[in-house]
Formats: sequence, C-alpha cells, structure tokens
Amino acid sequence: MNKVKLRDLGERKAVKLLRDILSNKSIDITSMEDDCAVIDFGDEYLLVTTDMITQQAHIPEKTTPWQVGWHVVAINLSDIAGMGGEPLGLVVALGLSSNQDIKYLEGIAEGMNSCASNFGTSILGGDTKEAETLTLSGCAFGRVDRDKIMLRKGAKPEDLVAVTGKLGNGGSAYQSLKNDMNIEKAIKDLMEVYPRVKEGIALSKTKVVSSCMDISDGLASSIYQLSNLNELGFKLDLSQIPISNEAKAISMKLGMSDEELALYFGGDYELLITLKKEGLNTAQEALDEIGTELTPIGEVIKEKKNILIRDGVSTLLEDRGYEHFRWKS
Amino acid sequence: MNKVKLRDLGERKAVKLLRDILSNKSIDITSMEDDCAVIDFGDEYLLVTTDMITQQAHIPEKTTPWQVGWHVVAINLSDIAGMGGEPLGLVVALGLSSNQDIKYLEGIAEGMNSCASNFGTSILGGDTKEAETLTLSGCAFGRVDRDKIMLRKGAKPEDLVAVTGKLGNGGSAYQSLKNDMNIEKAIKDLMEVYPRVKEGIALSKTKVVSSCMDISDGLASSIYQLSNLNELGFKLDLSQIPISNEAKAISMKLGMSDEELALYFGGDYELLITLKKEGLNTAQEALDEIGTELTPIGEVIKEKKNILIRDGVSTLLEDRGYEHFRWKS
Repeated sequence: MNKVKLRDLGERKAVKLLRDILSNKSIDITSMEDDCAVIDFGDEYLLVTTDMITQQAHIPEKTTPWQVGWHVVAINLSDIAGMGGEPLGLVVALGLSSNQDIKYLEGIAEGMNSCASNFGTSILGGDTKEAETLTLSGCAFGRVDRDKIMLRKGAKPEDLVAVTGKLGNGGSAYQSLKNDMNIEKAIKDLMEVYPRVKEGIALSKTKVVSSCMDISDGLASSIYQLSNLNELGFKLDLSQIPISNEAKAISMKLGMSDEELALYFGGDYELLITLKKEGLNTAQEALDEIGTELTPIGEVIKEKKNILIRDGVSTLLEDRGYEHFRWKS
Repeated sequence: MNKVKLRDLGERKAVKLLRDILSNKSIDITSMEDDCAVIDFGDEYLLVTTDMITQQAHIPEKTTPWQVGWHVVAINLSDIAGMGGEPLGLVVALGLSSNQDIKYLEGIAEGMNSCASNFGTSILGGDTKEAETLTLSGCAFGRVDRDKIMLRKGAKPEDLVAVTGKLGNGGSAYQSLKNDMNIEKAIKDLMEVYPRVKEGIALSKTKVVSSCMDISDGLASSIYQLSNLNELGFKLDLSQIPISNEAKAISMKLGMSDEELALYFGGDYELLITLKKEGLNTAQEALDEIGTELTPIGEVIKEKKNILIRDGVSTLLEDRGYEHFRWKS
C-alpha cells in the first residue's frame, strides 16, 4: 500500500478505507452506503448529508455563479430525497479566491437561495474561507418518520425495479460539452439539476418501497451498489428504460448508443427504487399527483448477477459509471 | 460595487452580503451571527454548523494528516460548544488531489476519528472529491434543550464577562511559525485545538449564562461582535485576562506585548460568556468539576463602547482580529 495514490484507488475504495477507520454511532438500520447519515432524534430520524463541488472537477467554464449556487444545494437535497426525507435546511461552506468579484458571490447566494426555496427549505448558515480555487461544500439535513424511511438495503427477489423521470440528460450534457455542441444548454442540464424531493417524500409515504437511492453516479453503477449491499441481482430490460429525448438526439448526432448515455453516466439525479409488484399502482399514483413518471425497468433476482436484456438477449450489465479520482483517467 | 473583490470586502461584510440575499426559516430567537443554525426539532433545538479549512489559509507546512483531521472536527465542535449543544455527529467532505498518497487520507481519517470520539461523538458520513488543493469541510450537528440554549444575544448591562481557560496560545503559535521558532509545538497548538464541548454543556445547564460564543476569531473581535449584536458595551480589565504562559514567553522573546497575542489573534477556541454577577459561583463550580477555569475579565456596560482598562487607565479596545480574505494583507 506504500505510495499508493488516490487516483489508483478510486472513490469507492477510498470511501471504504475511510469507513474502516471511522467508528461511528449511526443507528444500526443504516450503512455508510446510504445517501445520508441517520440519527435517532425523538420520534423521528434526522438525516444529514454532505456533498462538495470544486471548480476543477464539477464546474464547466461559462457556468454562471447562479448555476453554481443552485447545483450545490440541489445535489445535497437529492441525498435527502433518496431517503424520503423532508428537508429542514442547509449550511454551505464556500472556499473562494480573495480575488473573486463580489458579484460572483452574490450570484452564488442567489442561486443557492432559489434552489432551497424552490424545494421549501432554506440556507440557514455557512462559512466563507479563502481558497485557491472555487470550492463549495453543502450540508443538507432533513427529517423522516421512523416507519417511512427509505434505505438502500431492503430489496427482495421478485421486487420490481423502477426509476423516476427520464435518464440520459447528464450523459448527453457531458458529451455535448466534450464535443463543443450547444454549450449553454449542456451547462444548464448539468448544473440546474432537479432533485426529486417531493417524489421521495411521496414514495416514502406509500410504504411500498423496499429500497431507494438517487442515481447521481449513473444507473449501472447504482444497480451494482444495490446489488452488492443487498446480496442479490437485478435483471433490467433495456427497452423499458426511459431514455430522454436529449440522449436520443445527442447519441444520434455523435454516432454512439443512447444506452451508453442513459446507463453509464452520472448527473441524472433521478430516484431508483425497488418495490413489491402489487405496490406499483400505489407508487405510480402517488407520483402522478406531482406530475412525475415512475417507470418499471426490470426486477430483482436471487442470484447476485446484474443482467441487461437487449433485444431479447441477456447480457451482463457493466459495472462502470461516474467515479471521482478516476473520472479523468 | 462593480469589480469589488472579496479581499476589499473582508469576511464579515461578505457574510452580511450573503445574509441579505438568503431568506431563511431559522427560528426567530437566533440570528445569522450565532455559531450554529438553530432548528425546531420536537422538544429540542437542533444545532447545525459548518466550517471549512483549506491548505492555503489554514494548514501550515509540516502539519501531519492526523492533525488536519483533528482540526476540522475540533473547530466544528467548538461552534456546537458555543451554544451549549451536545454533539450528535459530524459529516466531513474532503477535497483531495488525486495525486495524494492514501497514507495521508488514512491519517486524516484517524485524526477525525480521534477528535470525534474524544468528545463522545463520531463521523457519520462524508464525501470525497478531487480538488487541486487540500480542502476539508466539516458539518457538525447537535441537540440542546430549548430552555438551555446559549445564544450570542442576551447580554445585559452589569452582567459579568468571563472566559474559559487561558488566552494567547493561538497568537503565540502564529508568531512562532512566522519567526521560525519551535515549529512542531506551534503547529500542535494551532491544529490540535480543544473545543470546550463539556464546558458548553455544563454552562448551559446552570442557566446563569446570558450570552455565549466561542472566541475563535480572537477576544477583541468577539467582544465587538457581542457589542454590536446586543447594542451595548464592554469594559475589560487587562490585569484580569488570563494570558497563557506560552503567550508570555513568546512575547518576551519577540519583544512584543502579550496583550497583543491574547486579545487580537484567533485560534484559542475558548468560550466567552456573560452572566449575572450572582451566577458566577454556580458557573465556576460547574466548570471546576471538569477541571476548567472560568475567569471574570470585566463587565457589560450600557453605552455601546468597548473599553480596556490597562494599568488603571481606560483605553478603547481595538476592533481587530483574525478575519479571512484580509488576513494576509
């Protein structure tokens, strides 16, 4: 292990390394794999999560400060959404160059405020520090009734697998940027993401969900995380996966498959759930009221093996997606 | 305001600018000036705070990774302590170079873990991201009974002013580093700070405290913050201020006054409180049990003017201390 660099390790192994060192008092039902830390608090659970973005890794050139502010709030709220939580607020630490224009800081604040109030919550405090490059670290916290929390653990064989919304916008935005196509739209899609807060709360209330997570790292990667944690497998039907029109259009233009954009890229911030077959109507009705689609895309299987059915043929789903430290290599 | 840079503004004005833009739902009793955001949660208050450190601004060369980890946890716990909170846990986001040795990450994790468990709490989760320079952003949360919370607002004329422990270690460590004296000890004093968690809880239980904050920005600066927020003044007696032996020794060596180190430097992480005269014994007894001194250093006055009595002569306390963005100029 001597002189091993973080880039050789990848984010998931780095997190495992941290987890092994950190003894923690989080409640027993959850794991460090969950989107949020979960703490007993009176009759409820308190959910807490943190997500950091840095100029270098997450903020494309030409992103407006408003979009930067929106983004850091949105990705933190997405973790609360993934557990069915009602957001209580956020605190945000900003690392800024002392050479930064104050108009830029104002823009960030306005973007943070817009996103928070859009989801019925607010920025309650923060910290500003001098940093060489722009760094924003958000921390969102929320509450959820004990009997309504949605965890990553809990999927059972024969459960259905379903996703909210459409997949592929994150991937197509990434490809657009890379190929210098429609930059403004791409940045909007990447930065002004829309966390599924209302959907998470509505799904948690139905009590038909057996496991849930947000798929910010990509569908395939999220499926593997659920598979490993629950010690079972998934069988997805490609023809059922709701692929966004953007992903279809961009993949056509670039001569690549839309499957690649919808399955193996991050940045979509939809919810991935498993649920009992008989609960599907209930869950879909709950999301209908919000105007969000919930699409079944496959089922949970006993064998710990993740399968993608493409044109009737079973293939192995690949275990790759967005991962930090390795992303650029 | 066009093209005004953050360095022209200073941290306090930057925070005010943010505050004016951010509409928030924090409870009415508190202000954005308090150490933590305060949220109604059942019968209690939930306290949440965030503090970021960056390589450039806060981490001297030769600091060990263990010390970096300890520090980010300690400074966040200090904010919980300042309001009398019992820590529930922390989440920490780490921005690291992909070129970073994993031994370094392990060291950080071990330092974070040591500090958290030393104060009866734990690291419940986090985030790791690629960043050009080392950046750590902690978020601590805690609970406090509604009738025991200590706020910055509440000081009354004729209240006593008191501090825990001794002042000047932060300042003398800073001067040691600057003058290349006893580097190892200086880094230890700067980074391995000891938040007054037990003291904060004990003081809050006495219910004799009228206002409280941690003095991480320096005593003089903290006094001005309390003065502005409470719309009253302070009269401090220099001869009563408990100055650390380090500060006395270093100031002697460097031919500067120990007053400078104890009043106008940050990094001490002691608690500054106001309380009714008749409550002093109760408060001192509560801290005696922990083995921490509580020293009265002056009193609150009606007039909004901050006075330092030096050798029997009243002078104006200067409004300066540690402030980001301007720190280096």
